[in-house]
Amino acid sequence: MAIKLSELAEKTGCRLHGDDCLITNVSDLDTAKEGDIAFVYNPKYLDKIASTDASAIILKEIWLKHCSKPALVADNPRLTFVKVARYLNPEKRYDAGICRSADVADDVSVPESAYIGPNVVIEPGVQLGENIQIGANTVICSDTSIGDNTVIHPNVSIGHSTQIGKNCIIYAGTVIGADGFGYERDGDHYLKVPQLGNVRIGNYVEIGANAAVDRGALLDTVIGDGVKLDNLVQIAHNVVVGKHTVMSGHSGIAGSTKVGDYCLIGGGVGIGDNIEITDNVVILGRTMVVSSIDKPGAYASSMLTDEVSNWRKNALRFRHLNEMEKRLKVLEKKLEP
Amino acid sequence: MAIKLSELAEKTGCRLHGDDCLITNVSDLDTAKEGDIAFVYNPKYLDKIASTDASAIILKEIWLKHCSKPALVADNPRLTFVKVARYLNPEKRYDAGICRSADVADDVSVPESAYIGPNVVIEPGVQLGENIQIGANTVICSDTSIGDNTVIHPNVSIGHSTQIGKNCIIYAGTVIGADGFGYERDGDHYLKVPQLGNVRIGNYVEIGANAAVDRGALLDTVIGDGVKLDNLVQIAHNVVVGKHTVMSGHSGIAGSTKVGDYCLIGGGVGIGDNIEITDNVVILGRTMVVSSIDKPGAYASSMLTDEVSNWRKNALRFRHLNEMEKRLKVLEKKLEP
Amino acid sequence: MAIKLSELAEKTGCRLHGDDCLITNVSDLDTAKEGDIAFVYNPKYLDKIASTDASAIILKEIWLKHCSKPALVADNPRLTFVKVARYLNPEKRYDAGICRSADVADDVSVPESAYIGPNVVIEPGVQLGENIQIGANTVICSDTSIGDNTVIHPNVSIGHSTQIGKNCIIYAGTVIGADGFGYERDGDHYLKVPQLGNVRIGNYVEIGANAAVDRGALLDTVIGDGVKLDNLVQIAHNVVVGKHTVMSGHSGIAGSTKVGDYCLIGGGVGIGDNIEITDNVVILGRTMVVSSIDKPGAYASSMLTDEVSNWRKNALRFRHLNEMEKRLKVLEKKLEP
Repeated sequence: MAIKLSELAEKTGCRLHGDDCLITNVSDLDTAKEGDIAFVYNPKYLDKIASTDASAIILKEIWLKHCSKPALVADNPRLTFVKVARYLNPEKRYDAGICRSADVADDVSVPESAYIGPNVVIEPGVQLGENIQIGANTVICSDTSIGDNTVIHPNVSIGHSTQIGKNCIIYAGTVIGADGFGYERDGDHYLKVPQLGNVRIGNYVEIGANAAVDRGALLDTVIGDGVKLDNLVQIAHNVVVGKHTVMSGHSGIAGSTKVGDYCLIGGGVGIGDNIEITDNVVILGRTMVVSSIDKPGAYASSMLTDEVSNWRKNALRFRHLNEMEKRLKVLEKKLEP
Repeated sequence: MAIKLSELAEKTGCRLHGDDCLITNVSDLDTAKEGDIAFVYNPKYLDKIASTDASAIILKEIWLKHCSKPALVADNPRLTFVKVARYLNPEKRYDAGICRSADVADDVSVPESAYIGPNVVIEPGVQLGENIQIGANTVICSDTSIGDNTVIHPNVSIGHSTQIGKNCIIYAGTVIGADGFGYERDGDHYLKVPQLGNVRIGNYVEIGANAAVDRGALLDTVIGDGVKLDNLVQIAHNVVVGKHTVMSGHSGIAGSTKVGDYCLIGGGVGIGDNIEITDNVVILGRTMVVSSIDKPGAYASSMLTDEVSNWRKNALRFRHLNEMEKRLKVLEKKLEP
Repeated sequence: MAIKLSELAEKTGCRLHGDDCLITNVSDLDTAKEGDIAFVYNPKYLDKIASTDASAIILKEIWLKHCSKPALVADNPRLTFVKVARYLNPEKRYDAGICRSADVADDVSVPESAYIGPNVVIEPGVQLGENIQIGANTVICSDTSIGDNTVIHPNVSIGHSTQIGKNCIIYAGTVIGADGFGYERDGDHYLKVPQLGNVRIGNYVEIGANAAVDRGALLDTVIGDGVKLDNLVQIAHNVVVGKHTVMSGHSGIAGSTKVGDYCLIGGGVGIGDNIEITDNVVILGRTMVVSSIDKPGAYASSMLTDEVSNWRKNALRFRHLNEMEKRLKVLEKKLEP
């Protein structure tokens, strides 16, 4: 696909600076070829403009004096770059149709606009929106509903009675709607607590590969509109994740916890059960959160990396930190006037 | 399903207090509708009894004076609630039978009581118990045995020669019996160590979604009776997990470690290789355990969440903690009488 | 398989000590039966030689005086043991052929030496090497290439245009080439950044069960020759993992980070985005790395396990560690001569 820079300017609401030219793809400044458009988001990279082979640059007005190439002038060059990239690279889609080896229950109505891949299993009572794409070997259990334009990749497992909104993407290997992890001790063993709730997923939600979102125990597990969950994320039963919250790989939320809107949760973060995190909270990678957070802001708990020889001495000493404070207090007392 | 409260009393060994009534489902006090039964486990919720729409309450004898509704009087209201929930919500089962698209080896005998889902692959030498359920697109490799009443969800992969006991549940996407992670350095590269052991899983074991239990190197990996493993748990080769131990999401055990019976292991816990954890050990979330634990009790190592500005100062200071102790000692010396 | 000890000596370049005998398998000293060969890697186990039922022992020259059995004399007994184990236990392979239920695109040429399991889906443009094995229910998307002798286990999902080298093993449930986790905030929501790069995997790479390796955003994600990734490992977009680096279970690398050759990364380690780790770095389990490491060596950040009562006091005190240092400094000042 080749498209005029002027057309990209129009599509992204940017001003065209310099001559018009044909753009075929996006790239970074270092590896760009002729026909590519690249962007500058940090002035320290402005000197790369002279040497890049990119045909056009996306940058801020104030940086124009450093740029002798055609350019898109943008308030937010990175966002404009993403919009251009999306425009030049529309999502690949399978042609509509039902593969012969798919096993679709008799009562399920498949829209003509839908793609159902090979060996897909769709159980009775499932409702499918327009333009959905269901990847090979995915299993959708009974009474689940999937909204328009949602894409489900291969080898996904979706439990019964799950609600998935419109324009969602669920990546390969992910499991939605497995039973929550609930047991009650009964003498010498544990009794499984029936998991009677479901999973409700909003619109524009994206869930990475090999993630797991469990169904609720009594009420539902809820994933708000626009939420983005990375690979291998774990969402336990009855969790509520607020709108447009983003969670990176290996992070997890324990049962019945409520996370607010627009939170940014780093990789490997663990959020304990039955707590509440307010809106607009940022949690750094590998943090363990065990108490509610009611103030927006950035939070952390993980330690800093050190060479093992230093680390070990300090880590051993940590076991006596409280004691050290007491020794300190004794000295302070002695030196009081 | 509607059932008399008096019958539930009988089934659960509780005393019926007040009038008999029909119960259709379980619920919590807040969202209960007529026909629901709810429970109180903490006296602070007793005042909700007056306003709930639940038709009956499960509670302790001593709380009866707060309750004007029909009630089940229980020593452990939560456990009774679970029993009632199980009674009112028997597990959903597929009708017995072998789906046409299942690929079952000729030498495998499938009991008439078994359900084998679409696209299930069962290799030669597999032994299947009565009343088992194998979900769609699951693969069971050669010479594996699966005990009576065990349920395996969709897209599960079970390696060859695995033994799975009776009444187990294995959730979607889980992998049992992949090779353990064993390599030996040979000059400039690593050589794979053949993984010649198997996986042996006891009875009443439940393993969550997208978990992984590796086969042993020489001996077997062993999961004891009644063990419950949550989603995304990792069990390395030659690990032995004792009976009725419970591990939450994202926790993992490295090679050849032995965990005792009735342990409770929190989310994201890492247990190092070649150590031993005794019975009845509780490990809080995100703890890293690298030495054996021979005393029952509760253990932790993760840090507490703090605002990033405070956290950073303290985390940087931690790198000098041992030095601080030395400075403290110098002062103590100076102030000695 | 039974083989002469003298032949094993020849195959592994070791000296035979004592009489020749027939060896049928490998074992450890404790559980060995007649016909087994075991090894000693630590002199503290030498006294087990007298009581083991093993028919032969692999050990070092200097330990021979403790051994009255036939032996292989090796510089590195463990490595020799692994070589013997590999020799006696050649990898199980399926017979070549394409299962009837496999769905292979018309333009894909399947070598006669290849095994394509039941319900495998291979999309157009895929290139397959000699002697490959593709396990049941695995999905390989368009334009992917897979090198000779590579084995892919069941229920694996491989995204389009992935390159996988020769002699690789990919275990069940793993997802290669899902979209990277890239979003750009656009007012009140996040916009997905097209992930236009691919995944390139070298030769002799092994990737455990339920792992995830994402495709790059603009450039490719690259896994070097000989890399070994354990179960549930997460590799984000544009990461480069150097040759022969080994990562244990639940470890993860965030976007655009470059890890060097021959690194050893423990379980549950998190490596932040956009940093660089040099060659020969060892990172202990559960460490969080957020800055580049340019010096080979061993690094850690996780805390040591303690009983909860002690741990809590110290963890609470940690929140005032920086303050403690200041109090210490005040005292030092007061006591200055």
